[in-house]
Amino acid sequence: MTGAQLTEADIDEIALGAAVLGTGGGGDPHVGSLMAKRLIRLHGPVALRGVDDLTDDDFVIPIGGIGAPSVSVERIQAESELLAALAAIERAVGRRPTAVMPIEVGGGNSMIPIATAALAGLPVVDGDAMGRAFPEAQMVTFHLAGYGPGATVMVDHHGNEVVSRPVDGAWSERIARAVTVEMGGGATMIDYAYGGDVVRECAIPGTLTLAKRIGRILRGRDAAGRELRDDERIDALCADLDAVRLFEGKVADLQRAVDGGFTRGAAELDGVGADRGSAFRLDFQNEMLLARRDGALAAVTPDLISVLDLATGMPITTESLRYGARVAVIAIPCHEKWRTPMGLLTAGPAHFGYDVDWVPVEDIPRERRALPDSARTTEGKAA
Amino acid sequence: MTGAQLTEADIDEIALGAAVLGTGGGGDPHVGSLMAKRLIRLHGPVALRGVDDLTDDDFVIPIGGIGAPSVSVERIQAESELLAALAAIERAVGRRPTAVMPIEVGGGNSMIPIATAALAGLPVVDGDAMGRAFPEAQMVTFHLAGYGPGATVMVDHHGNEVVSRPVDGAWSERIARAVTVEMGGGATMIDYAYGGDVVRECAIPGTLTLAKRIGRILRGRDAAGRELRDDERIDALCADLDAVRLFEGKVADLQRAVDGGFTRGAAELDGVGADRGSAFRLDFQNEMLLARRDGALAAVTPDLISVLDLATGMPITTESLRYGARVAVIAIPCHEKWRTPMGLLTAGPAHFGYDVDWVPVEDIPRERRALPDSARTTEGKAA
Repeated sequence: MTGAQLTEADIDEIALGAAVLGTGGGGDPHVGSLMAKRLIRLHGPVALRGVDDLTDDDFVIPIGGIGAPSVSVERIQAESELLAALAAIERAVGRRPTAVMPIEVGGGNSMIPIATAALAGLPVVDGDAMGRAFPEAQMVTFHLAGYGPGATVMVDHHGNEVVSRPVDGAWSERIARAVTVEMGGGATMIDYAYGGDVVRECAIPGTLTLAKRIGRILRGRDAAGRELRDDERIDALCADLDAVRLFEGKVADLQRAVDGGFTRGAAELDGVGADRGSAFRLDFQNEMLLARRDGALAAVTPDLISVLDLATGMPITTESLRYGARVAVIAIPCHEKWRTPMGLLTAGPAHFGYDVDWVPVEDIPRERRALPDSARTTEGKAA
Repeated sequence: MTGAQLTEADIDEIALGAAVLGTGGGGDPHVGSLMAKRLIRLHGPVALRGVDDLTDDDFVIPIGGIGAPSVSVERIQAESELLAALAAIERAVGRRPTAVMPIEVGGGNSMIPIATAALAGLPVVDGDAMGRAFPEAQMVTFHLAGYGPGATVMVDHHGNEVVSRPVDGAWSERIARAVTVEMGGGATMIDYAYGGDVVRECAIPGTLTLAKRIGRILRGRDAAGRELRDDERIDALCADLDAVRLFEGKVADLQRAVDGGFTRGAAELDGVGADRGSAFRLDFQNEMLLARRDGALAAVTPDLISVLDLATGMPITTESLRYGARVAVIAIPCHEKWRTPMGLLTAGPAHFGYDVDWVPVEDIPRERRALPDSARTTEGKAA
């Protein structure tokens, strides 16, 4: 980044890194990056504010898209929605926004705040409230720290505006999801708008910078500036993030549907290379949430599960996953805030109805079992 | 009414009349009347303001319940919701309410504004925006005159608050219905809050007074103060309202379900007395909307179709309708505003998907056909 500014040149790398941290969700990073680049081109670079540089007088606006990623690639967010949402939060709270922030660093939702910042002439905060993407509105570090959603703004491209004041994060999600479905499956949302003091306490700092570093590696430069071959990139990424390579395989089956304002489904992979003979299953609700290898836990939310193109290392969203794609699956340890009892209660496997216990991804044994074909088929069906 | 005041003694008669005008919906009148009486007892009588007495400086708040009547009898609206809704509209619009008004005179929604007025020390307007009850939020005279819903408040008993600014009445209904379902099938709502000038232009005047007059007749006194026998009441009511006695029968079949924030269903009646040998069907969505006799149109929305206990004349809501009940069905010509092209487009049969043309109820021929049994059975099934 150019000093403490984001220019058009930074956007593609941030979008690429945010697609990894988005674990398949967070809205389409490409669509978001086009909007961010266009608005920076029109309005100039965006100042980047460190979380610790926020003052108590700041009023920080997390803004992003809510809904099924499958919708977000078809119905592009209108720029007018961003300003309408800012105006609505200012009117509802009676406080002028001084900075915008990603509610989640993942996917397109890393881009929307940059686009908004460019449009409104505000700085963007180098941090977010998840350190990744999650599918539900209450899955934010504000909620973990006991802060409610506050005045919550939703606007759509028709010009509808909804400002709710839900009693807690769970109600916020319920109301917002119902409104999202009615608005056509996607909307622009502001929630957890707080002063700089609360954001300093709650936000996960440095995640836009982290996204940029990831993007840089995936585009072929390591931290030291050394050029990476295509086949070195995933390993370099894993080394940088303390991530685990879980599996390499080919997408053999894919179920995916837009359901209740989410994109839900599962992908089955047949192993290739060292993983030949093993089966792997990914369950997702907007984001990749559960990975099982031959029926055994490989990684589970809140740890990050990301799918990358096996040849190029490019991240693949749940929406762009295709039958026959050859992919690598990696897992990244989540931020420690998600590993607390409150974090696991909020976004752990039980919340999503998965009958597995959370185990830190780095502690899950990785022996590669060569199961007889019959056993594997059975497990694949049972999973 | 005691001069221009509503006392506890007025409430039961208004509730009774509003149950007739509610055509089966509008929320439970009994539950509403208990709340209105309690709050008048606590806070004193409520001043009644004529529609024409409103000044341009007035800010009039239509308040009521939204949702399935089946829910409203199980989950009683909390008094705290009424004040929360008033506070929310004042905050959203920046204007202090000077009067409350029924959005619809029907059912419990005639009572909620009186209860709110008592609680807040405000007058209640003797008028409403339907002249009856309708199931959907845009079915109001404001909409017919081209006025949008404006800032629309919804609160529930959990303490959730939603303020939407929908682009038009149809969007208001969509968003409000989705939020209602999420709030548990019922909520307190304020919409179409306007200044006295707009209310003078749009409201249907005198409908609380009308409800009281209906209630008085059904309790056994005609306009001249003469006492009525039980079996004279329905005829007296029809004479007073220019209403038509459509049918007398026994409920032979009843389908009713809570679906998408509405109570939907149909009742089949077997004729008794002069109607013996005929079959009658009532279709409802919160309100009674379509009446067919032996398969032929008997009355249809926007005209009012009301079901009364055959013996006592007491109105029966769609929710309290029971198998075996002996009822009289009457139809009341709707207010002329609903008989315009815009009125029929908004609340006529086509809007509800009924494949019948609207005919003014007073113009529908009433010959009593004695069909052979076989034909009647077939029609009953096809209807």
